[in-house]
Amino acid sequence: MSDQAAIETEDEKALDPRRVAAILEAVEASDADRLRDLAEPLHAADLADLLEQISPGARRDFLHLYSPEFDGEILSEIDESIREEVIGALPHEVVAEAVRELETDDVVDILEDLEEPQQEMILRALEDADRVAVEQAMAYPEYSAGRLMQREVVVAPRHWTVGEAIDHLRGAEWLPDQFYHVILVDPRMKPQGYVTLGRILSARRDEALNAITEDSFRTIEATVPESEVAYIFNQYHLISCPVVDENGRLVGVITIDDAMNVLDEEHEEDMLRLAGVGEESSISDGPLETVKSRLPWLVVNLFTASLSAIVIGQFEASIKTIVALAILMPIVASTGGIAGTQSLAVAVRALATRDLTRSNAARVVRREMVAGLLNGLSLAVILGLAGTLIFGDWHVGLVLALAMIVNQMVAAMGGVLVPLALVRLGLDPALASGTFVTTLTDVMGYFAFLGLATLVLL
Amino acid sequence: MSDQAAIETEDEKALDPRRVAAILEAVEASDADRLRDLAEPLHAADLADLLEQISPGARRDFLHLYSPEFDGEILSEIDESIREEVIGALPHEVVAEAVRELETDDVVDILEDLEEPQQEMILRALEDADRVAVEQAMAYPEYSAGRLMQREVVVAPRHWTVGEAIDHLRGAEWLPDQFYHVILVDPRMKPQGYVTLGRILSARRDEALNAITEDSFRTIEATVPESEVAYIFNQYHLISCPVVDENGRLVGVITIDDAMNVLDEEHEEDMLRLAGVGEESSISDGPLETVKSRLPWLVVNLFTASLSAIVIGQFEASIKTIVALAILMPIVASTGGIAGTQSLAVAVRALATRDLTRSNAARVVRREMVAGLLNGLSLAVILGLAGTLIFGDWHVGLVLALAMIVNQMVAAMGGVLVPLALVRLGLDPALASGTFVTTLTDVMGYFAFLGLATLVLL
Repeated sequence: MSDQAAIETEDEKALDPRRVAAILEAVEASDADRLRDLAEPLHAADLADLLEQISPGARRDFLHLYSPEFDGEILSEIDESIREEVIGALPHEVVAEAVRELETDDVVDILEDLEEPQQEMILRALEDADRVAVEQAMAYPEYSAGRLMQREVVVAPRHWTVGEAIDHLRGAEWLPDQFYHVILVDPRMKPQGYVTLGRILSARRDEALNAITEDSFRTIEATVPESEVAYIFNQYHLISCPVVDENGRLVGVITIDDAMNVLDEEHEEDMLRLAGVGEESSISDGPLETVKSRLPWLVVNLFTASLSAIVIGQFEASIKTIVALAILMPIVASTGGIAGTQSLAVAVRALATRDLTRSNAARVVRREMVAGLLNGLSLAVILGLAGTLIFGDWHVGLVLALAMIVNQMVAAMGGVLVPLALVRLGLDPALASGTFVTTLTDVMGYFAFLGLATLVLL
Repeated sequence: MSDQAAIETEDEKALDPRRVAAILEAVEASDADRLRDLAEPLHAADLADLLEQISPGARRDFLHLYSPEFDGEILSEIDESIREEVIGALPHEVVAEAVRELETDDVVDILEDLEEPQQEMILRALEDADRVAVEQAMAYPEYSAGRLMQREVVVAPRHWTVGEAIDHLRGAEWLPDQFYHVILVDPRMKPQGYVTLGRILSARRDEALNAITEDSFRTIEATVPESEVAYIFNQYHLISCPVVDENGRLVGVITIDDAMNVLDEEHEEDMLRLAGVGEESSISDGPLETVKSRLPWLVVNLFTASLSAIVIGQFEASIKTIVALAILMPIVASTGGIAGTQSLAVAVRALATRDLTRSNAARVVRREMVAGLLNGLSLAVILGLAGTLIFGDWHVGLVLALAMIVNQMVAAMGGVLVPLALVRLGLDPALASGTFVTTLTDVMGYFAFLGLATLVLL
């Protein structure tokens, strides 16, 4: 069975490893027709994934071969980490054509992460009206609702009937691709409520629009950060939400698909920041970009790890006398690190979903302390018994057990206090808090174990 | 200024710490009227958050006082970790009334996490038609599209015109709260495409529906896991998606708000699993539940940490001769742990978004190896110089530097190989992989440092 036949028996639309292999083969053979046949049925999001997954060389060749068919959607779907590279690899007129197809909010999203020269090239490619719209959006703060919204809105005066709204929509020259509500506005363009299209379709023509508005109606100010937008959509199950300026006038609308995208990116950021990775990093980065996103926190950790060394250094004499201390000391520190990471993950998540607030912070910290004590006691029993049996000396078991209890409590509390402190300082609670918490548990782990050992065993 | 006045000057709808305090005061004073005034303006999702944040005692009193106003939405919004407790604290007839208000997919979501007796109580409370619908949904696998979907669908024969569809909708006795498409079906109820409500509203009445269908149309099988559903919605920017049975017949529809909810839960799961926390855990857990969700992986770590102790034990003689080795050895291990966590976070995220696949796994592993080498070299220069200067012996610097390079490479590769191996074994790549990776970097860190020291320094 030839490769081609194999592909044709599979799901036409799926990006499976077999199709990837076939596409790479077509690229290598410079077979533009075959590449088009293989790539055309794929969704732009899957083509973007493909570009992210293949090597930089294959990417260049793919783009060269596929540029006649290259679509604006792909540019919009592609990860920002390689977007600049992709734009650079395409002929200018292909990029110009591609961005002209996009809605202005997607163009803004692309522009945000590009360097000056590419930004200008794209702005120049746009039609005048679109360029003005994009430049106005770019005047809002980075990562704000104003940058996220689409400016094309579907509105109706609040005194209209269903029939008037339908006639207006039928007569409209142009409507957004996606819209789910008709927003009711007063004469000064202040949104007063909205009506779902489903309600409009099922109501009688003479029904007043303002009699069938939705309870869920709320507005978002254009300067609100996009993370807040994602939270509001997720919390209140919105589908679309009008965006207003500082005077309460309608300036655009955000739809749930954009909010979902932001939610997803926020999660990525939390996960990477917790681990101490620069948030821009991606699986398609080259080794140098990878180093750039990771080395800074590694260097920080090199210094924080020296704190552990300094603590251990204080007990040099004890270790010289009983070398077993050096063998046992990582156990308490390591288990503390895991406990701190656990407590931290729960706290960072709860801060992101706003389930951890000033109202319950004190109770959560107390809960962590009790939980840390209970975990510590459980682990102390196991480790204490093991230490006693293996070394034939209950003093060793006792030292291990007590150190474990202390460090588990420190770990559990540290996991929640470190992110709370970062928030208090106006920082992101996930900002490499993993590094801080494990430093804390390492230092305390060594100190508690070696300190107690010095007291009890020497 | 009294508390009440203070509240009234704030945002009517927001759940801020001040309002929480006022509500708790009303609860303590058993002032049902005041509680109602304070709680009524809040969205059900915010009331659910409030219930999650307050102490179990206050929760019980709140529910007792507020039960006449208790709304089905709150039950649906509340975290599963306290849902059982909340249902238990409410009078049966309040729960019965509350679930009768909900759509069947929300009832299914509530039932999934309850124990038998509460499940039966709720099923008995439903009207016959709803109970049958819920029981049919419960027949689908847990966490599948079949459980997520709503069974109420808006369909039209594929040969209808826009006008026929509108007349049908106007005449319909009942329509779902939220719907965004009319699904076109053939006579055997197989979905053939869908039309957005916006297109229907803006088209002429005599236009054929099948001439204005959306390109984005796809269907999901009812047995597909919900994580796949979330991925499909996020990847292809769907707003709603028809669900079909194994014969391709329409059985329901999933809307994006449900998919966004699943995406959010999947992220939570990833973050908690990575940290080795049971995925059911929540910030509103009591200490015992907290211990239950964390102790298992701590015990596992106690054993894996013993591996480090065993490795160090092999070098007892070396440490006895040069105690400084015990002081320095955590540095290499700890920096390795951070590097492993970084690489792991990127890999787990890329697996979740399907950016790391069989097609590029080999290249990613190579990239990690190179990045690990480069990070290792950079850190080695700093640590090597510091060691040489502090100990006045370049041999110490050399040992530290070489051990660092080895462990950084192991860490970077371990971070991607461990989750890939878990996937290969059919497990969740995030499943406590943090524990495995740090064990690996600890063991290698101690082994490389002490081994090299034994060779070079003794």
